[in-house]
This record gives sequence, C-alpha cells and structure tokens, in this order.
Amino acid sequence: MIPKETISRHLANLQNKICSSLELLDGKASFIEDNWTRAEGGGGRSKVITNGNLLQKGGVMFSAVEGETPETIQKYLKVDKANFFATGVSIVLHPQSPRVPIIHMNIRYFEMSNGMWWFGGGIDVTPIYVVKADGVRFHKRMKAVCDKHHPDFYSKFKTWADDYFYINHRNETRGIGGIFFDRLDTANTGLTQEQLLAFIIEVGENFAPAFAEIANDNRDLPFTENELRWQALRRGRYVEFNLVYDKGTSFGLNTNGRTESILVSMPPVANWEYNHIPAEGSPEWHTLQYLKKGIDWMNLSETA
Amino acid sequence: MIPKETISRHLANLQNKICSSLELLDGKASFIEDNWTRAEGGGGRSKVITNGNLLQKGGVMFSAVEGETPETIQKYLKVDKANFFATGVSIVLHPQSPRVPIIHMNIRYFEMSNGMWWFGGGIDVTPIYVVKADGVRFHKRMKAVCDKHHPDFYSKFKTWADDYFYINHRNETRGIGGIFFDRLDTANTGLTQEQLLAFIIEVGENFAPAFAEIANDNRDLPFTENELRWQALRRGRYVEFNLVYDKGTSFGLNTNGRTESILVSMPPVANWEYNHIPAEGSPEWHTLQYLKKGIDWMNLSETA
Repeated sequence: MIPKETISRHLANLQNKICSSLELLDGKASFIEDNWTRAEGGGGRSKVITNGNLLQKGGVMFSAVEGETPETIQKYLKVDKANFFATGVSIVLHPQSPRVPIIHMNIRYFEMSNGMWWFGGGIDVTPIYVVKADGVRFHKRMKAVCDKHHPDFYSKFKTWADDYFYINHRNETRGIGGIFFDRLDTANTGLTQEQLLAFIIEVGENFAPAFAEIANDNRDLPFTENELRWQALRRGRYVEFNLVYDKGTSFGLNTNGRTESILVSMPPVANWEYNHIPAEGSPEWHTLQYLKKGIDWMNLSETA
Repeated sequence: MIPKETISRHLANLQNKICSSLELLDGKASFIEDNWTRAEGGGGRSKVITNGNLLQKGGVMFSAVEGETPETIQKYLKVDKANFFATGVSIVLHPQSPRVPIIHMNIRYFEMSNGMWWFGGGIDVTPIYVVKADGVRFHKRMKAVCDKHHPDFYSKFKTWADDYFYINHRNETRGIGGIFFDRLDTANTGLTQEQLLAFIIEVGENFAPAFAEIANDNRDLPFTENELRWQALRRGRYVEFNLVYDKGTSFGLNTNGRTESILVSMPPVANWEYNHIPAEGSPEWHTLQYLKKGIDWMNLSETA
C-alpha cells in the first residue's frame, strides 16, 4: 500500500501546479486561499479565483479528510465500523466569455482501515456553444491519456460520463462529456495501486493544457448580449445538475462538509426563463443537438 | 366524499382569481397561459408573468393529474396498487425590487381509489431585506386564517414551516416562514373534508392580499446596485432550497412531471459568490438574524 500521505501530497502539489497554470492563462486575477479544518479530522485548502480576464469565477479545491466512517456510508458500502481517509482535487471554472466552455475535473482517493481502497474522478466540458473541433480535440486528448494506462478505459469512462453527467428532467447531457470513473481498484482494472495513482495524476496533469487549448482558441472571439443571455441559461442548467444529481455535491452537503467549498461550483449570474426554446437552426439549437448521450467524438464526421 | 372534480374546479377558479389580482397589482404585464396534458392522465394550466412593473417573473400553476399510482409512491404510502388523483395550485413570485420579498404558496389535494385522501399546502415569504413590521403583519394574517378553522393550526403549521423551509447546509431558514401543512385529514384534525377544503381555499384567497399589502408598502422604495447584488445572492439560496430540499420539486422531477412548470419557481438573475459574509451590523447582516427557526412573530418586540 502506498502511504495515504503520499497520495494526498501528490494531489496537493497538483492543486498548486494547476493554480499556477491557470493564473498564467488568466493573466490578471490570482487565486485566494482558504485553509480549513474538519472537526472530525483532516481539512483542506480552497483556492478561488474571481473577476479575471478569462475566468469569471473558478475554484480549485484540495481536501484530505479522515475519521470514523459516517454510518450512512458504512451502510452504503456494507462494511462494519472502520475509519476512512479521503483525499481529492475538485475544479470548476466559469469563464467570462460565452465562447469558452465551463470545465470540471475531480480526482479522488478513498481508503478504509479495513483495507478497502479505490480511485475515482473525471473531466468534463460544458460549452455554452459547442464547437465541434474543440470537442473532438478534447475527447482525443482524454482517449490518449486513458490509452496509456488501459486499452478499455476511454470507451468505458466516456460512456460512464455520458450517463453520469445527464440531466434527466431536461433530457440533456450537461455538456459534451469527457470521462468519468469511480471505485477503481486492482480487482476491477487489473492495475496496481501505483498504476492507478499514475493514471489519476496524469488525468490531473492534463486538466490545465486541455482547458488552455480550448480557452486560447476562443477567448478573444467577440460575443453579444444575446450570447451572454444563453450563457446565463446554460449556467442555470449547470446548477440544476449539481444540486439535483451530482453525488459529490449531495454527499458533501449531507455529511456536514464545508458548504462554501462544495458550492464554489455554483456559477455567477445564472438565469432561468420559462419555457425558453431556441429557434430551429439557431446556434443555440445547434448546441442542443450535441447535448446527447452516445456521440462518438472519435468518428464524428461520420456520425453527425 | 366531495367529488374530486369539485375540488379541482375550486382550485382552477382560485388560479384565475389570483392571476387577475396579480395583474392589477402589477399594472403592466399579463400572464401568458400554457395548457398541458399528461400522457398518463390529467394535465394542467401554467400561467406565467414576466417583466412587469412589480414582478420580474412569476408562475401561478394549476394541475389536476390522475392515473395509476407510481410504484415509488405506493411503497412510500405502504398501499397496494391503486389509482390516484392529485390537484393543486402552486405559486412563486420573484419581484423586480429587492425591497419586495419573494413569496410562495401551494395548496393541494390528493386522493386514492382505496379511499385515502388528504390536503396539504402552505404560504411562506422570503424577504431580501427583512422588514420586521411586514413579517409581523404577515404572520398575524396567517394566524387569523388558521384560527378561523382550528385553534391549533397556526402554532403547529408555523413550526412545520420553520422546519420545512430550512436550508440545512446553510444553517438558515429560506425566509421568515409562514405556514406549512401536509396529509391533513379527518383523523388528524377532527375536521370534515368540507371543512378542510374551506381551510385551504381560505389560505388561497389570502395569498393575493397578503402579498399586495407587503408589495404596495415597499415597491416604490429606491434601491441600489448593492441591494440588487444581495437579491441575486438570496435568489441563489432560493434555488438551493428548491433543488436540494423541496419535496414537491423532487417529486415532480422524479415522476416525469412537466419540468418547465415545476422549475418556473427558479429565479431570474441568481448569483453565487464564494464565501460572501455580510459585515456585522449591515442591513444584510440584520436580515440574516431573522433567518432562524423559532422566531415568535406574535410577540416579536419581546423576543428580538
């Protein structure tokens, strides 16, 4: 077993590296830092950036918490009383421009004193306006990251993301997906703990470059009031997903997590309009055509 | 038993009366109307007003749906297969001015082919800035409505509202409460079906005057950009309550309800700022002092 402190140190370092990259990319704003502790054990470091050139609001959150496993989780995992340790990095970035997508990443590690352990995480992109080439490039990067570690990971985790990032009551995916995975261990992957750690670190190291290449290609494009209005509506959908479906959010809120760190994912300036339906053929309508499960980004020219 | 069509006709009439009152009060905007049907049986009429003098966005929704009871609800109620009928009026109003509170009302009736029936509902007020005299007046009106029907209703339903409209992860009530009640029948109230119908109709008839007296006293007050910012943050909290805790919302979303009618409660222009804490002694801070359970509005001068 890798000492748990080693894993959390890797993730804390990753948080710093990602924040440095994002500050360079933004060119104006800096992260502010809050350290917090959890009464029952452990704590975290929340880094938040606001009002930048590129980023309107973004959070890059690290935590490493431990203690007695809450009863609800013992029941869920069907285990006896045991201590747990959980560490992770979570990111949500809300760009200023409706031309630049919202992006999210999470990587996490969980272990228990009874010997159970696993990794989880994912990256997904939520464009306000889908640019097909950006989606293809992003998925190709995710596939390349996955392929280095396991031949089945991309296709499995891409489908998992389609299913996970789905807003059932809207019959829409949150965005163009990406990868999502949970409870990865040696039994279900054939990889050692070291190999799985290497995988999630590589996912984490691809976050900033994946975002940078989309952001830099789109950040200087002009946009209109109408496009900002659509951005506010799409941010409303983002709120709906996070508060209604996201398991990390509901787990955090239900286990007395640090609310401000959990809900740093909430957007600035969201809006809801009754029964807003984009005109057929409009750019907004075209975007909705991509918010579906099962789009094959590796072969998109043939299927769309 | 009162025929269920009689009850739904009362509620449909109430929707019309409330919409007429609100149009008069607004003085500019009119409700637009959408009729919808539910594949499994029944339907509704959604009335929505936007961009008025007083109201930025408001929904007054009527529905009367029926059919086979969904399995999840059978299980929850511990009943065998049976048909159900549910009718209700739901309202959420988001005023333009941060000086005028958000207000919500719901009244509903449910019956099953096995003979079970009950009434439920409530009214609650969510000020952006609490005005003590308005809160006292609103609670006194609710007490007067309740007292005409049952001596215990106000104190019981006021406490129920405090508990129901509570945002646990913020350790805040949604607003200054009001009344909330559910599953009222003859066994638990001693009132007949006719008497309980008279009670919920009287609650419904008090909605427009209760809102009008607060709105008219505050709608012409000036406000600043800073107060609009606080309004957007409080609307964010409203979203959090509705999507995380509100049982009507999650029931609707989980049973394939009409999403646009359910989420018409969502506000225009909501915002989330990381770790926004009002300065002690500020008007925003004063408002937070009222967002607590157990405030005795009947005797507030002694307790606050």
